[in-house]
Amino acid sequence: MEQLTKKHTEDTICAISTPAGAGGIAVIRVSGAQALETVMKSWKGADLTAVKSHTAHLGRIVDAGGETLDEVVATVFRGPKSFTGEDVVEISCHGSTWIQQQLVALLIDNGCRAAEGGEFTRRAFMNGRLDLSMAEAVADVIASNSRASHRIAISQMRGGFSRMLSSLREQLLEFVSLMELELDFSEEEVEFADRTRLIELAENIHGVISRLADSFSVGNAIKNGFPVAIVGEPNAGKSTLLNRLLHDDKALVSDIRGTTRDVIEDTIVLGGLTFRFIDTAGIRETSDTIETMGIERTFKKLDEASIILWMIDGTQPLENIPAVAADIVPRCEGKHLIAVINKMDSIDSQRLAQLRATVSEAAPEAAIIEISAKQDIAVAQLEKMLVEAANVHEADLNAVVVTNARHYDALRHADEAILRALDGLRAGISGDFVSQDIRECMHFLGEITGEITTHEVLGSIFSRFCIGK
Amino acid sequence: MEQLTKKHTEDTICAISTPAGAGGIAVIRVSGAQALETVMKSWKGADLTAVKSHTAHLGRIVDAGGETLDEVVATVFRGPKSFTGEDVVEISCHGSTWIQQQLVALLIDNGCRAAEGGEFTRRAFMNGRLDLSMAEAVADVIASNSRASHRIAISQMRGGFSRMLSSLREQLLEFVSLMELELDFSEEEVEFADRTRLIELAENIHGVISRLADSFSVGNAIKNGFPVAIVGEPNAGKSTLLNRLLHDDKALVSDIRGTTRDVIEDTIVLGGLTFRFIDTAGIRETSDTIETMGIERTFKKLDEASIILWMIDGTQPLENIPAVAADIVPRCEGKHLIAVINKMDSIDSQRLAQLRATVSEAAPEAAIIEISAKQDIAVAQLEKMLVEAANVHEADLNAVVVTNARHYDALRHADEAILRALDGLRAGISGDFVSQDIRECMHFLGEITGEITTHEVLGSIFSRFCIGK
Repeated sequence: MEQLTKKHTEDTICAISTPAGAGGIAVIRVSGAQALETVMKSWKGADLTAVKSHTAHLGRIVDAGGETLDEVVATVFRGPKSFTGEDVVEISCHGSTWIQQQLVALLIDNGCRAAEGGEFTRRAFMNGRLDLSMAEAVADVIASNSRASHRIAISQMRGGFSRMLSSLREQLLEFVSLMELELDFSEEEVEFADRTRLIELAENIHGVISRLADSFSVGNAIKNGFPVAIVGEPNAGKSTLLNRLLHDDKALVSDIRGTTRDVIEDTIVLGGLTFRFIDTAGIRETSDTIETMGIERTFKKLDEASIILWMIDGTQPLENIPAVAADIVPRCEGKHLIAVINKMDSIDSQRLAQLRATVSEAAPEAAIIEISAKQDIAVAQLEKMLVEAANVHEADLNAVVVTNARHYDALRHADEAILRALDGLRAGISGDFVSQDIRECMHFLGEITGEITTHEVLGSIFSRFCIGK
Repeated sequence: MEQLTKKHTEDTICAISTPAGAGGIAVIRVSGAQALETVMKSWKGADLTAVKSHTAHLGRIVDAGGETLDEVVATVFRGPKSFTGEDVVEISCHGSTWIQQQLVALLIDNGCRAAEGGEFTRRAFMNGRLDLSMAEAVADVIASNSRASHRIAISQMRGGFSRMLSSLREQLLEFVSLMELELDFSEEEVEFADRTRLIELAENIHGVISRLADSFSVGNAIKNGFPVAIVGEPNAGKSTLLNRLLHDDKALVSDIRGTTRDVIEDTIVLGGLTFRFIDTAGIRETSDTIETMGIERTFKKLDEASIILWMIDGTQPLENIPAVAADIVPRCEGKHLIAVINKMDSIDSQRLAQLRATVSEAAPEAAIIEISAKQDIAVAQLEKMLVEAANVHEADLNAVVVTNARHYDALRHADEAILRALDGLRAGISGDFVSQDIRECMHFLGEITGEITTHEVLGSIFSRFCIGK
């Protein structure tokens, strides 16, 4: 760690931190030991090296020839009480792309280095302003596009997850200290650690770790979207429904500027949750997935989904239903199956009752709804059913939820280690081996918070960040 | 003015001021009498109503339910020493589009109004922080994409133009005061104002105003691009040259983030100047403008250009040249004509000499250059010739240059008025009439700086601004 810290805080770095393009204003961030001096080389205004931290100053940036590049506001944050822990200057300039470019070029001429993706956050981590899971959450906060994903990311960024992990590590440390103390006195066969209490503690820790690891499936869905598959016979209305759902995306408030619709193909936000349609390109292109892909291949896709919308053309013979159900139902175990009887505007109530009865018999687990995708009848109810099927409760959002595959992986390893320790304790094997397992468990938890890490791991984490953050 | 000021400063306004989209950070600007109180409703941190001006504070924005929306830095600028002259809070949040939307929505719930385009700058003008020509220059600064256009806009924003106009108005005021004093004593036939000195002063003022008005042709070209036309026979290589020039655009430093290539079709920046190719869509689509448009229509386009590139296929018979020249040359009066002998890689030096002689005879005014657009030979020299043809000197950029059609229009009217005053003075007509003309001249100069303005004029000026500025 020491070495990494040194290597990475030598340079003073700069980058445009605001979104790319032209706007009213843009912010160029400069961080490092020489941040103030570097900006001063092109600055006309108050002496930034002499001003107080957290103060904003109107001034001019001048180029090498003394020409005014822009009138700007420079805000000074002195380390260690800054985002990165180093001296930071944020230059708020007019938002022309030309000025932004020139200003960065000027800072580079003055001795700055262009920051790599996530390098400001990386420095915040290196300087102990954030632990690794908090730093990772910064990227998640920026990427989050729904209430639920945002809330979990904010909670992680603010240290909710870190506090839980550090409490686990503290308990394990106490645990292992006592056991290792016994080893020092091994010839005397003392037991400082009450084995019954230790087993209780290990079981408790296993419980917390495995609950965290289990939360990944919902956490991952919240972060990346709940996978939904739409299946059904040709012309049942799959593509019409999909287009209707995509069009109805109520989460985007398009009359507020800055809400440029980030075109994430075939993703919708409902009730603060993101839903992601699997392989919907196929559905949209042909409106007939089964026919073009072959039934087997289509149904394989069901494995990826957690919610399945089975589209049924209400105008087609009832006799087809059991056969299709026989294909679909066995593949829906542990998933939410919603049978969507479409084209309800073209059928009478008697037929509807027959359809319901037939579907109910063929797929007893399925929730059933009648809609008309084309006429937009009851699509809002279907959306409500999707949100219910996601089964995310307010309580889930308040709890610590794992959304990061790296964390999930480390938690699983930590859980394996604590289970081995538990087995050892129960079998009454030597404290030596048990303490090794506990140390391993601590190691994996430490990987999450960054207490134990490598240059490669850091590189791969921060390379996912945008430049300027 | 009083009324306008009042109407427009009642509300507290807010907007995203940074470019649209996601980034490391985004800035939401809030301005108005209630700016601090409005932000405080959703703020957890220092009491912003009690902090000093120009200070930055770390805190949290919480939604109506008390959930943390984001950790932010709020910078407080107290009026009148702020950009708008009112209390301003700039909230620097994480740059997710979701957070940006939510934050604006929250501020609106708290009583803010979403700012209209340019409304912050409009308030700066209303509150006397900028005059109108300086306010207009803010939009020009943001839109400028070359060194020259940027430099002129910055100079105007910093008040270079305004100072010149205000000096003119002061001189005129002195002038007219003396004349009007005479009118009070009209029965006594006194002359407080020395007529010879007045004529001298009026001539001087006419000189300055007309020089300013004349600068519009170069100012407009600097701001909107120098219009260039490429003409020539079919297959002379017009489209190849155009693509070569567009591709060679050296002004864009593409390895610095934020330099998203603003695709302004067929515009290039060379030597800090923008060149705009006229009707080049036609050239590119057909590679043969003359054939498809008819010679007359093509040559009409020449009228819009200030620089004409006449492409000559060096491999074609010399005999064609005089005929084409006879069409082109008469239409190039007062313009820069550059004869571009293309495909020089396919011809020998003897033939080149013949070509040069023929072109020279047919178009004595034309500058001549040999290139190969395809092989990229001497295209850089041609680019240098374009920059030279634009004929903009460092001195032009240091002088006050008019770039705005509204200003040009007002200057022409001001010039007409001062010329009428001058005629009157020379003819020895009554001071009454002369002073009326001078007042009119002052009126038009006042329109530029906004001392005289209407709601409609302001509306049309600020509607061109982006929201958030």
